[in-house]
Amino acid sequence: MANVAVAVVAGAAGAIAGRAMSKGEGGRGDDEDVDFAPDGRANANHVAAAKKSRYLAQEYPSVDERDVKTPDDWVKRHPNLIRLTGKHPFNVEASLPELIDYGFISPVNLHIVRNHGAVPKLSWETHSIDVCGNVPKPYAIGMDELSKMPADTFPCLIVCAGNRRKEQNLIKQSVGFSWGPCAVGNTYWTGVPLRVLLNRAGVYKPGPGARYVCLSGPQKELPRDYPDQDGGPGSYGTSIDMETALDPTCDVIVAYEQNGARLHPDHGFPVRVVIPGYIGGRMIKFLTEIKVTDRESNNFYHFNDNRVLPPPVDAERATEEGWWFKPEFIINQLNINGAIAYPAPEEIIPKSKKTYEFRGYAYSGGGRKVIRAELSFDQGLSWQLADINVREQPRWADFGSGDKARHWCWCHWSMEVPVEKLLDPKCVEVCFRAVDQSMNKMDERPTWNVMGMLNNPWYRIRVHRAPNGDARVEHPCIAGPTPGGWMQKMAAERPTGELLWGWGGEGTPAAPPAEA
Amino acid sequence: MANVAVAVVAGAAGAIAGRAMSKGEGGRGDDEDVDFAPDGRANANHVAAAKKSRYLAQEYPSVDERDVKTPDDWVKRHPNLIRLTGKHPFNVEASLPELIDYGFISPVNLHIVRNHGAVPKLSWETHSIDVCGNVPKPYAIGMDELSKMPADTFPCLIVCAGNRRKEQNLIKQSVGFSWGPCAVGNTYWTGVPLRVLLNRAGVYKPGPGARYVCLSGPQKELPRDYPDQDGGPGSYGTSIDMETALDPTCDVIVAYEQNGARLHPDHGFPVRVVIPGYIGGRMIKFLTEIKVTDRESNNFYHFNDNRVLPPPVDAERATEEGWWFKPEFIINQLNINGAIAYPAPEEIIPKSKKTYEFRGYAYSGGGRKVIRAELSFDQGLSWQLADINVREQPRWADFGSGDKARHWCWCHWSMEVPVEKLLDPKCVEVCFRAVDQSMNKMDERPTWNVMGMLNNPWYRIRVHRAPNGDARVEHPCIAGPTPGGWMQKMAAERPTGELLWGWGGEGTPAAPPAEA
Repeated sequence: MANVAVAVVAGAAGAIAGRAMSKGEGGRGDDEDVDFAPDGRANANHVAAAKKSRYLAQEYPSVDERDVKTPDDWVKRHPNLIRLTGKHPFNVEASLPELIDYGFISPVNLHIVRNHGAVPKLSWETHSIDVCGNVPKPYAIGMDELSKMPADTFPCLIVCAGNRRKEQNLIKQSVGFSWGPCAVGNTYWTGVPLRVLLNRAGVYKPGPGARYVCLSGPQKELPRDYPDQDGGPGSYGTSIDMETALDPTCDVIVAYEQNGARLHPDHGFPVRVVIPGYIGGRMIKFLTEIKVTDRESNNFYHFNDNRVLPPPVDAERATEEGWWFKPEFIINQLNINGAIAYPAPEEIIPKSKKTYEFRGYAYSGGGRKVIRAELSFDQGLSWQLADINVREQPRWADFGSGDKARHWCWCHWSMEVPVEKLLDPKCVEVCFRAVDQSMNKMDERPTWNVMGMLNNPWYRIRVHRAPNGDARVEHPCIAGPTPGGWMQKMAAERPTGELLWGWGGEGTPAAPPAEA
Repeated sequence: MANVAVAVVAGAAGAIAGRAMSKGEGGRGDDEDVDFAPDGRANANHVAAAKKSRYLAQEYPSVDERDVKTPDDWVKRHPNLIRLTGKHPFNVEASLPELIDYGFISPVNLHIVRNHGAVPKLSWETHSIDVCGNVPKPYAIGMDELSKMPADTFPCLIVCAGNRRKEQNLIKQSVGFSWGPCAVGNTYWTGVPLRVLLNRAGVYKPGPGARYVCLSGPQKELPRDYPDQDGGPGSYGTSIDMETALDPTCDVIVAYEQNGARLHPDHGFPVRVVIPGYIGGRMIKFLTEIKVTDRESNNFYHFNDNRVLPPPVDAERATEEGWWFKPEFIINQLNINGAIAYPAPEEIIPKSKKTYEFRGYAYSGGGRKVIRAELSFDQGLSWQLADINVREQPRWADFGSGDKARHWCWCHWSMEVPVEKLLDPKCVEVCFRAVDQSMNKMDERPTWNVMGMLNNPWYRIRVHRAPNGDARVEHPCIAGPTPGGWMQKMAAERPTGELLWGWGGEGTPAAPPAEA
């Protein structure tokens, strides 16, 4: 493990996160966790790989004391998870360096959790999914039956659309809570393709009455009551279009295993939806209803969440002027994004070291491959290519290449950087950006939006020189309640709380002089 | 037509560009050229619409005097086309304001042309396409037979990957010639789906030996001789992967009509490939060979063209270090891009006017919809939404909506701007950017690359106040040999010819102060 002893994120990392204790701690997981052969074709046995990853699915042995006296006092959670919304509901991310250390496949108990209310107490034996709406043959299906149907297994990244929102909230508060840069998890998922379940109900193609598939969790999951909505009162729901639901290459599955084991309660036990390349907010947990309709889901959260409205539109204006219901602003696919994991926040890089290995992750949406991960040591004037460690066998391209190959996972990247470069006083920051196969790049600046979603500006860490000559790095902010970071400092200096220009600077390099 | 009388681009615009002379000149075409009903479903009869657009397919009546004594002395071309590579070979774009004035569907004779050599003199009666390679049933097919097969018709934008390259060449010369912002054309295309032709040869799915489809034009089209390549000596060729070729929703067609008429020689007569959402460089004209292979095309241009290499890689390094052959850097899909058409370069906006209508276009690749077109009057500090005039019935979503709808065309946008705003001395420039449905945005800055391709920074026009108080706008540069534009001025001031920072400014708003 890199030099995180002095870093904020260190501490008790790695205790029980699914890593078999006998495997020892502190190593980098990439090469030891999963047997990836250099030839991609040999990696395609995802079922076997998922089984091998079962040690990454283990539950923490006991209930955290913070969950006692909450409705979740029965859910066993890893204590290292960073709680973002107090004790309850449970919304957490891992420390990014810790998660990265586990390698390509994440441990289930360090995987992002986004809960809207108490975790529903559901049972494998009694839970069932209602396949209903405008279908010729409605039916209900229980877990035993579902898990005997033809299933598919593959690794897939899940990302909350609010990943990196803390940065946006330091510019101006959005309506969402502050995610750090680790609202992610990359695990194996096993489930029945949604199209197979729809076929069984007699739906084989889109048509009048069958344009959307509404997906809902159980009633009373959420405290707020919207009685006439899809899913019923207190249900969290959304919809996807029928074309996506039925397209085999979209890989939408109704999943009941993660890393080869039944789902953890926080991840939707006994069954959830996984929609690769989409934002996590559409992947309904505790799936209860699959309803075919002629119109989008009328669930409250389908319209009032998971949208990127244009920057000038704040919450009040959005509601007054009906922006939540404008179809252009729904978000489905992830956009290109990434972050630097090492050096960790506040990490010291000793001047005695010759080189330091920068490491991080990147991903894009819609199955698009990340083709470049780059660092700049001169604020974007020039960029150097990092190594991308592709450990994914892409789907739907028989030979793993080609424009239509679907990349559903993150990639890790690394670059060995001469420490000399970081000790140079001219090096004030290191910027990271990624580029995907459609030449979409991470933005130079943040674009604030009312929900603070899909925030993907360059990930910038500032470099300071300590009195003894070592280098110290400062991230934009630190996940969770921990104070620190250069954006937070900047926000504190601006009591108006508005840093719309994004990074606190004034003017622009492109600005021609204003006329006198 | 807006106030272009004083603009560089005015002049003889509109003479014979397919607009029936009796229709009069100078009007905006949007509402009169094509009968688009407000209800998208009614617009789906593309065959009828293409027939109605036949007046936009007419050939110019005579050969331009500049083409006399060239190998193309038989090809009739519109004199308004801006010639970018001298007389020959013929590489042209229209004036952007002129093309925009024609509306959603472009006249064939103002459509971008990218020729690599003399236009091959081919005949409808004798031309045939060889369907060969690793196929069970190879065959050759002539034009009469091809045009009797089941065909599809739809509107589709064609864009050269070098669109807006002149801006990049002002930063530092790339290996490509200088396209202005109008290397585009949006017309109806009619042809036989490539998958139908492959099926006829017995190819129904990718498999060993059948991973790629190599597409080639005729031998001796190009002056340079690469004897062992696909297509043979002097052929321009490329390949696409079999998944794309066979996927109905990718809409790859072998096209023999444009706007309802047989192809113009410059556009590939008698037959070419159209691959919607892709860069134009893969859409082989004068199609002669469809060859199924186990590996990508070995045509010289497949590897040595149509790549975006990382910025530090120049031509010499690319060749020395083998960058042309690294699979990550091939480009296929277009990226999000757009430009301002009105006000035109050097246009004067009189202080006496109350408002001025800004207009332009935007597009993205891979079928992704443009969801936002925005102008900033304060260099990106804030953005205002323009109206997007969607005139396209998207493909492959039965009801014209949903995440999988394929948008193969450009959109036009407009915004009525108070002239007062432009007269304010604080308004030094107007910036345009677009955003697509996957939240990909045009970049703030250009990223120079050795081929100067997929250049998509904000389109910025500078605003000056004339001595009489009118406003005058200055584009980054002017298409063709015409001098002018703020980027060109900036380049002239920097005799090193390197403006890698892109816009000539120093530092960045994000730059923390360097340590003393």
